[in-house]
Amino acid sequence: MNIALDVMGGDHSPHEIVAGAVEAARAYKVMISLVGKPDVIRRELAKHATSGLKLPIVPAHQVIEMDDKPTTAVRTKPDSSIVVACDLVKRGEAQAFVTAGNTGGALAAGILNIGRMRGILRPALVSPFPTQRGFCVVLDIGANADVRPEYLPQFAIMGTIYARTVMGIPNPTVRILSNGEEDGKGSQLVIEAVELLRRTPGINFQGNVESKEIIEGVVDVVVTDGFTGNIFVKTAEATARLLQKVMLQELTRGPIST
Amino acid sequence: MNIALDVMGGDHSPHEIVAGAVEAARAYKVMISLVGKPDVIRRELAKHATSGLKLPIVPAHQVIEMDDKPTTAVRTKPDSSIVVACDLVKRGEAQAFVTAGNTGGALAAGILNIGRMRGILRPALVSPFPTQRGFCVVLDIGANADVRPEYLPQFAIMGTIYARTVMGIPNPTVRILSNGEEDGKGSQLVIEAVELLRRTPGINFQGNVESKEIIEGVVDVVVTDGFTGNIFVKTAEATARLLQKVMLQELTRGPIST
Repeated sequence: MNIALDVMGGDHSPHEIVAGAVEAARAYKVMISLVGKPDVIRRELAKHATSGLKLPIVPAHQVIEMDDKPTTAVRTKPDSSIVVACDLVKRGEAQAFVTAGNTGGALAAGILNIGRMRGILRPALVSPFPTQRGFCVVLDIGANADVRPEYLPQFAIMGTIYARTVMGIPNPTVRILSNGEEDGKGSQLVIEAVELLRRTPGINFQGNVESKEIIEGVVDVVVTDGFTGNIFVKTAEATARLLQKVMLQELTRGPIST
Repeated sequence: MNIALDVMGGDHSPHEIVAGAVEAARAYKVMISLVGKPDVIRRELAKHATSGLKLPIVPAHQVIEMDDKPTTAVRTKPDSSIVVACDLVKRGEAQAFVTAGNTGGALAAGILNIGRMRGILRPALVSPFPTQRGFCVVLDIGANADVRPEYLPQFAIMGTIYARTVMGIPNPTVRILSNGEEDGKGSQLVIEAVELLRRTPGINFQGNVESKEIIEGVVDVVVTDGFTGNIFVKTAEATARLLQKVMLQELTRGPIST
């Protein structure tokens, strides 16, 4: 197996990306194609013991920055690490593409250069979401701000496969994010999607779910539109950050620590 | 001024409701009509010093319970405290209605019995939301799971009036909840509503806002549809509860407290 890795993307690139690639190549005995500026990659590789590891360098001289507009960037930066890495997958020279860079850019390059699986109407962004009991999978968290009801059974199938193969859950439960747990609660989109989800074979659909229950860990796969999913994930993250900050302020200003 | 108060609704009714009414009648010199079962109200009133206070009892012999279906309950329980209290407002005998009971029931009774202000397309549920700097106002948080773009300028106007008169903010800023701060980000609904909000006189509209910024306290009024708003508020609440719980578990199992 060959994995195309964008060395230029992410907050801690290139050093952490290359360090991770070296570790992964050793641990999993896979080939990892390092895509990016060759001199940068060579300098990073020199810091590691890489003999016997399959870490070919694939040159890409442009970089899609975090504030680049995704679709425009993919079109105007054909020699960027994200686009070049996607092309490796498209040509069958790599089986997967990994980046810690511009999410929209990765999504746009994936759609425009690799394309979707036959029959799949829309891609979805997936996030493992921490709960009281471990993790669940939430999708879509941002690829599609507007969806049609028929996308959601596909998200449910993709999420089920992800939970089964990546997280090792044999028969993952699926629920749809709504403003109430009861049947019949929800927007028109949710109500229509629930009807379709009930009739979808191969998934273990259990009805509506509220934020509270997701966080308690009652479900393995949560399906939603990309707008709601994005706000759900960002709100949980922002609330957690604020509480950590407040806690730290309180704990460090008291008489114990001064 | 006379305020119609539902004595039967809420987790701590009737005793906390009546205790609050007594305090408010004394502090603000207003009349508060106590709506509910007369014997229950008389028993509670007997615990307080009420001489000189205007606290008339208005009998209502039914109660809309927390798990009652709102619209059905309003129709089938015409002698419930919520419906009777709304009728006082409708007949002009009270100027406002307050309840800590079934939110959907209060909303349904408001719409069906009191009606909307002329020109207002839809009511909105408002919640003061805690931020790092104080409070902001979020609406709608659940009255309308599906909205049309033209509802949002009205929510913005209602939220502005609330922030100005209840929270005392002279020129409250208004933003629309979206999946990205930049102009042009959002669902089709958000994009269309932004256009309308920009052209709405009398509000201080500042564009899109993300969950993170709301929590940081950068804005006074947040407008959104009732589905997204409900999920936003519930997610923040559930995350905060979980963190408090985890924190308590960690703090009470360590060597210091054992």
